Amino acid sequence: MNIGVLGTGIVGNTIGTKLVQLGHTVKMGSRTANNEKAGAWVTSVGSHASQGTFADAASFGEIIFNCTSGAGSLEALKAAGAQNLKGKIIVDISNPLDFSKGMPPTLFVNNTDSLGERIQRAFPDSKVVKTLNTTNCNIMVNPSLLKGEHDMFLCGNDGGAKQQVADILKNWFGWKSVIDLGDITAARGMEMVIMLWLRLWGSLQTTNFNYKIVR
Amino acid sequence: MNIGVLGTGIVGNTIGTKLVQLGHTVKMGSRTANNEKAGAWVTSVGSHASQGTFADAASFGEIIFNCTSGAGSLEALKAAGAQNLKGKIIVDISNPLDFSKGMPPTLFVNNTDSLGERIQRAFPDSKVVKTLNTTNCNIMVNPSLLKGEHDMFLCGNDGGAKQQVADILKNWFGWKSVIDLGDITAARGMEMVIMLWLRLWGSLQTTNFNYKIVR
Repeated sequence: MNIGVLGTGIVGNTIGTKLVQLGHTVKMGSRTANNEKAGAWVTSVGSHASQGTFADAASFGEIIFNCTSGAGSLEALKAAGAQNLKGKIIVDISNPLDFSKGMPPTLFVNNTDSLGERIQRAFPDSKVVKTLNTTNCNIMVNPSLLKGEHDMFLCGNDGGAKQQVADILKNWFGWKSVIDLGDITAARGMEMVIMLWLRLWGSLQTTNFNYKIVR
Repeated sequence: MNIGVLGTGIVGNTIGTKLVQLGHTVKMGSRTANNEKAGAWVTSVGSHASQGTFADAASFGEIIFNCTSGAGSLEALKAAGAQNLKGKIIVDISNPLDFSKGMPPTLFVNNTDSLGERIQRAFPDSKVVKTLNTTNCNIMVNPSLLKGEHDMFLCGNDGGAKQQVADILKNWFGWKSVIDLGDITAARGMEMVIMLWLRLWGSLQTTNFNYKIVR
């Protein structure tokens, strides 16, 4: 499958590499057509990887992974272009972290709205599925890094899109449990949990952890 | 031990009953000295239970459990009286839920502040330990209700108070794992996770669940 990955950071890098390893063809998008980090990624990954602008990647992909930092996500998707995203699934991995006031970060949207909802409102003809934002990128694509079972969450307004993303999580990335939290407003809770995650990171001195919902 | 429980709802009821069952003497506090719900609880639990005003309960207890609803917590603690709470541990179980705008609730404080911090600031001579607010009250006092291991979080500014509360959680309530998230500002994450909890409730159709941090 042709897949567009927006963002050249560690999340885009890790997701993109995994997708190529799975046999897909990936175009990494960034602000400019010849981004240095995207170029290094293409060189390291090989022939099924290419780079271009956000619009190039969105146009190329049958499905789009938003791996940009939360503060830049809406701008990146606007540069990608509504027409290039129309009818497509946007897998939204972003967190609305605000580092502008120093560390630790706070959230620039939360409680009564979320970044996932903002993206869905800005691109009503696309199908936003929020997922993967609650754990680190190595675990995103290799959940068996952790000992024992644990859960991934997702939410979105389109049932078919959620099913397709759940299948990707299970069959491509190896997730055994995916919990559907309902419509895109559940992105509030999925994004707000990052504030607990940051404190767990401080206490456990590692980001290699994830949540299991024990019943 | 003499213990003050503030609040006559299901959380205060469940915590108070468990403490009496453990052999402690509990005074349940409410706005008025002869609260109907507190009276029913005293009748059901027996001779080691009594009721009174918030101030009566705070004065009576060597340790205080804040089981009031979040919207009323600061008012209840002010009625309890700083002098009656001075030097004591306040186990803060509250969540800052705002039901005033309908369902689902939102939070009336979050992100850059928390109810736990507000309580600590309002009662600087008390030792606030935030804990137990991330799961339902039956699990709070009986974690083995769930299958498999799972975690409780706590935070606060006083190391000794946190150790004492961790001991209570483990030795009295049966928690096997208690994760110290640091100072009271970690209450932000502990309270914000309720927004995820509410969506999990909707998806799982039960509140009988809790988080395990898988590493």
